[in-house]
Amino acid sequence: MKDFIFHNPDKVYFGKNQIKYLPEELLKLGKRVLFVYGGGSIKKSGLYDTINELLKTNGLEVFELAGVEPNPRHSTVNKGAEICKKENIDIVLAVGGGSTIDCSKAIAATTLIESGDVWELVSNNVWVTKALPVAVVLTNAATGSEMDAWAVISNMNTNEKIGLGGNALIPKVAFENPELSFSLSAYQTACGAFDIFNHVLDNYYFAGEATFDMILEFQEAVMRAVVKWAPIAMKEPDNYEARANLMWASSMALNTVLDAGTVHDCACHAMEHELSAYYDITHGHGLAIITPRWLEYILNERTAPAIYRLGVMVFGIEESLDEILGAKKTIKAISDFCFNTLGLKSNLSDLGIDDKYFKEMAEHACFGSIITGPENLTSSDIEAVYKMCL
Amino acid sequence: MKDFIFHNPDKVYFGKNQIKYLPEELLKLGKRVLFVYGGGSIKKSGLYDTINELLKTNGLEVFELAGVEPNPRHSTVNKGAEICKKENIDIVLAVGGGSTIDCSKAIAATTLIESGDVWELVSNNVWVTKALPVAVVLTNAATGSEMDAWAVISNMNTNEKIGLGGNALIPKVAFENPELSFSLSAYQTACGAFDIFNHVLDNYYFAGEATFDMILEFQEAVMRAVVKWAPIAMKEPDNYEARANLMWASSMALNTVLDAGTVHDCACHAMEHELSAYYDITHGHGLAIITPRWLEYILNERTAPAIYRLGVMVFGIEESLDEILGAKKTIKAISDFCFNTLGLKSNLSDLGIDDKYFKEMAEHACFGSIITGPENLTSSDIEAVYKMCL
Repeated sequence: MKDFIFHNPDKVYFGKNQIKYLPEELLKLGKRVLFVYGGGSIKKSGLYDTINELLKTNGLEVFELAGVEPNPRHSTVNKGAEICKKENIDIVLAVGGGSTIDCSKAIAATTLIESGDVWELVSNNVWVTKALPVAVVLTNAATGSEMDAWAVISNMNTNEKIGLGGNALIPKVAFENPELSFSLSAYQTACGAFDIFNHVLDNYYFAGEATFDMILEFQEAVMRAVVKWAPIAMKEPDNYEARANLMWASSMALNTVLDAGTVHDCACHAMEHELSAYYDITHGHGLAIITPRWLEYILNERTAPAIYRLGVMVFGIEESLDEILGAKKTIKAISDFCFNTLGLKSNLSDLGIDDKYFKEMAEHACFGSIITGPENLTSSDIEAVYKMCL
Repeated sequence: MKDFIFHNPDKVYFGKNQIKYLPEELLKLGKRVLFVYGGGSIKKSGLYDTINELLKTNGLEVFELAGVEPNPRHSTVNKGAEICKKENIDIVLAVGGGSTIDCSKAIAATTLIESGDVWELVSNNVWVTKALPVAVVLTNAATGSEMDAWAVISNMNTNEKIGLGGNALIPKVAFENPELSFSLSAYQTACGAFDIFNHVLDNYYFAGEATFDMILEFQEAVMRAVVKWAPIAMKEPDNYEARANLMWASSMALNTVLDAGTVHDCACHAMEHELSAYYDITHGHGLAIITPRWLEYILNERTAPAIYRLGVMVFGIEESLDEILGAKKTIKAISDFCFNTLGLKSNLSDLGIDDKYFKEMAEHACFGSIITGPENLTSSDIEAVYKMCL
């Protein structure tokens, strides 16, 4: 069992009636707030007005950065950091889903470096130890960014989408009201759900060292929750139980509870980031296309027992099969979940992607070296997985 | 589903090679340390010397409070607070199990009140918002005090054992090395294990509102871990996997992960605290005697489905029984676990306890009102449960 550090100081207010505590929590952190959001959905829903009123009537000064992209751009981050420097901002408040939160975290870090260019941090793989405090009002269950130490930023000039990490990026406080996700479309819900599922898979015990039984079982419980509640949320968008289960699954998947004593790999994430960087597709959809192919690619006698166990525990596949057969049934069950239950298109070609950049993307994905995991992947392995996705 | 706040800023270093980070973490909190411990076991094991050397060679100034009792006394807390005031202590460092940690937390709070008397806080049911920082080196898997917001203090003058709570009591940092629990006896291991089991039971969904499936399944996973690993740790005291699973189960049981959206009741704890207050018995043993009787007492058509589910999920009891019968089998399985597997004596009379104070204890346990839970308990209910334990 690996030694580990468990630390997540993020304070989460979860539920219907919690937003009233937002001003009180922000006032602990400062007075001048950069309110960061994406498209117009929070204006349509009334959330924009609610938050503005809450902040202003409680003596907070509000500045704004609107228009964060679904795969947030380094240029948007830099624009936000410029506002923070100029206006002497104390707190970055993200109102939205993963992209808005990631952008806000990156702004919080970039404000405190002289160049004001986030790409300096990203390209040098800096572990961020200083940043403005970030607060979150979550509207989408997906990335887990509301409780984790990561932000993924895209540079469309160079076709790069890269993670920026650091303890200073963990939000200080997050408000999670499942009702705020009622307005998500079935497609957005599906993509978010599979992002959560895949985050758990990143910690799953495929062929690594022994870990805690209970943590393995926690992981399976979160995956089962996604498999159970995602289709319900798609069919009944205002089903509170379904939205609440997905939202809390999103946070649990990446708040280090499921990491304890495990090996954290993220092969699928690394491969998907290239798809989003080159083609700006929705992250969760890219993951859904890649994951079953990746599992098929790494399936062997060493990895089969864990893959099969996942099938038994999460998809109710019968026990006592031959392990390779059981693992194959598991992969089929994951495919069915992605492409039937969640209704996501199953091939890259369906999204207008061909093999033109696969070689280049594969090199990027492994930074010219390997992606570690239950089976380490070289760039030619990664290219092979991309081809299986066509 | 209930709204909730999830917040636990405690930083845990878990594993074999973590204690080297102790000085670095303490230096973030100050320089003057009150080193609190219980009996001589940490001297015998060498831990006392290791820690002293680590602290002193890193420029920390060490003061000492030794001899914390298994049910820590208010007088010992007051003595510790006096040292803290006199010596201008920055940090209270608990090295030991739940009693030492509880005592240290109470010292940390009492130092900052003028009277210097912990009983002022306890008897007025004060929610502690100011305390010195507490750090922990854990040697026993049991109370969860290493990650929770509570301390239980006994006043032997008045036969009272009462919890003191507050966010300021959550330790700032905890070091959990499973090897430090190798020296525990089988009896100590058994008592600690059942304390953990019961903490999870306190959050279990007996008859309350719906909660997250995944949280219910997390609870069952932790209980399964206790049921699996406790007997192994008893037979093989230096089995690292067994000790690690129990230690992390102890922390997970009370660090709020298992609380999310649930109703937290603690009927058995309330009833047991009276046993310890009047007879100074080991807490986990008292819980083991009370728990199956309490379940029997509250068993009815409303509570049976959840009790039965617990039996299926944790003890592998067959499904498709009549619910009352299934619940009865579950209670029998818990009794067998306590009194056969863990080898604990099953009756209060075995511990020399008779019914002399039951009426008085029952009044204390419910503070002259009721204990809330899946079935609320009046003092006469509590007295009846005590009598079942004779």
